[in-house]
Amino acid sequence: MAEKSKVLVIGATGLVGRSVVEASAKSGHPTFAIVAPPSISSDPAKTRLLEGFMRLGVFLVQGDINVPHTLVNVIRQVDVVISTVDTPAEDQYQIVAAIMTAGNIKRFLPSVFGSDVGCARAVEPARTFYASYYTDIHRLLKEEGIPYTYVSCNFLAGWQHWTLVQPGATAPSKDRVVILGDGNAKVVFNREDDIGTYTIKAMDDPRTLNKVLYIRPPANTYSLNDIVSSWERKIGKALERVYIPEEQVLKKIRDAKSPDDLVWAISHSIFVKGDQTNFKIEPSLGVEASELYPDVKYSTMDEHLNQFV
Amino acid sequence: MAEKSKVLVIGATGLVGRSVVEASAKSGHPTFAIVAPPSISSDPAKTRLLEGFMRLGVFLVQGDINVPHTLVNVIRQVDVVISTVDTPAEDQYQIVAAIMTAGNIKRFLPSVFGSDVGCARAVEPARTFYASYYTDIHRLLKEEGIPYTYVSCNFLAGWQHWTLVQPGATAPSKDRVVILGDGNAKVVFNREDDIGTYTIKAMDDPRTLNKVLYIRPPANTYSLNDIVSSWERKIGKALERVYIPEEQVLKKIRDAKSPDDLVWAISHSIFVKGDQTNFKIEPSLGVEASELYPDVKYSTMDEHLNQFV
Repeated sequence: MAEKSKVLVIGATGLVGRSVVEASAKSGHPTFAIVAPPSISSDPAKTRLLEGFMRLGVFLVQGDINVPHTLVNVIRQVDVVISTVDTPAEDQYQIVAAIMTAGNIKRFLPSVFGSDVGCARAVEPARTFYASYYTDIHRLLKEEGIPYTYVSCNFLAGWQHWTLVQPGATAPSKDRVVILGDGNAKVVFNREDDIGTYTIKAMDDPRTLNKVLYIRPPANTYSLNDIVSSWERKIGKALERVYIPEEQVLKKIRDAKSPDDLVWAISHSIFVKGDQTNFKIEPSLGVEASELYPDVKYSTMDEHLNQFV
Repeated sequence: MAEKSKVLVIGATGLVGRSVVEASAKSGHPTFAIVAPPSISSDPAKTRLLEGFMRLGVFLVQGDINVPHTLVNVIRQVDVVISTVDTPAEDQYQIVAAIMTAGNIKRFLPSVFGSDVGCARAVEPARTFYASYYTDIHRLLKEEGIPYTYVSCNFLAGWQHWTLVQPGATAPSKDRVVILGDGNAKVVFNREDDIGTYTIKAMDDPRTLNKVLYIRPPANTYSLNDIVSSWERKIGKALERVYIPEEQVLKKIRDAKSPDDLVWAISHSIFVKGDQTNFKIEPSLGVEASELYPDVKYSTMDEHLNQFV
């Protein structure tokens, strides 16, 4: 029996991190999770999460990413490092530096877990932001010869799917939705546990070495108009659709203050330009998860909406 | 630089366990601590302890010793297993079974951390009790060829030293003490952190392979009469000493119900028969810690009493 790769997840308590930790532990990989201090929180939800990790046999360790020595010691215990930190730039560089010092890592999955911004036609300030945590790190990994896999999982179902992408909403609307652009750009939403499953399958797969893993299953690749139509069928009622034309979106980006301008610019890239889907996956650069792992029965976003009817 | 042995401590939250975990982590050994479920307690003292472990970079994992699969997975991460469980017999067998399944352990330190009961002249029921967690396990380890070190650390300072071995006392008496036998049998008390330090030094030392490590530093080897005299000097006052002759102790063992009879029988072995010290260490079977590691500046029990004056 081949030894299963040992995995370290940095950023384990986030939405993606917890799914990756659980998928890893459940599939029998010795799994280490770094928790930021204070490691055991007085927050009951975090405590329950950590308790659940430990029940799965996860090795919990406190790691302050700013204490390189600690990070190197933890990295030395494993084969694969998966970063799901949500404060990308500086933390990612700290992690890369620790991986280089440790010298034993067979694969690094940096924290992207979103769009493949390398293919994005974003305007500023999104363009610079993307470069800081993606393009620059990507170049560094190649230069230093650190084996990597980028996971581009696009949107998480738990993010805005259930609100029909209406920021601030607390339930899917039954009256009216606001849509950026013409609503026909295709986007991708995936359930968090599927993202965990695909990530763990890919992390030591030779077919994903130094490539991007795109999680873009056909059934979950649809436009905002499609999402709204699906919801309308479920509730048996048509919604008022208010479209904001691209010109108006670009003006909002120019007029908004930081960090709102960044949020608008990212939304523009994804919902107006369709940057999650407007490119063919170049086989020498990337692979698509549902094609690579056809045995994974992923959840569809159409099912996902059922619970909110 | 040689890789430091990786250590798993089973029973990490006990008095001995926590000292061993801390000594291991502080000396740079990758250290794993198994915590019984619920892994994160609502007990603030335990939570603080676990938080402290994580601050030292310890890998915390939940382990139910009765789930062999979990135990085997954890054991596979390390080189050395140290058991400090306080429910000796069954748990020790579960651990030995898991070590045999895992097949990678370079040294096992079973939970003794008390007297070397192999040299004891105990009466029943202590004799049978000792055999169950010591003699039988010892034989099994030899038969199966599992490399081991037994740590005989004798008494912990935090047990009864500060009460002058007066069970139930909440402070050292300034009036009267009860002493079993004639009070001249030599016993050994050691500070918990010294026990941790010696244990970690010994755990991968070739000189302790398949031997007993006796922690019996000369300054901490003294009789109950000596302890009481030391205390009298500190407080400038003589105590009334009430001696219980051996015959009367033996009668108490016969008359007491379980488990009190066991407590009396163990006390008889140690305080009347002097079973912690009444034998010379046979070099082919054991080594003494303060001789083997003269660089360790252990704390003396005489200092230990100062804080209670």
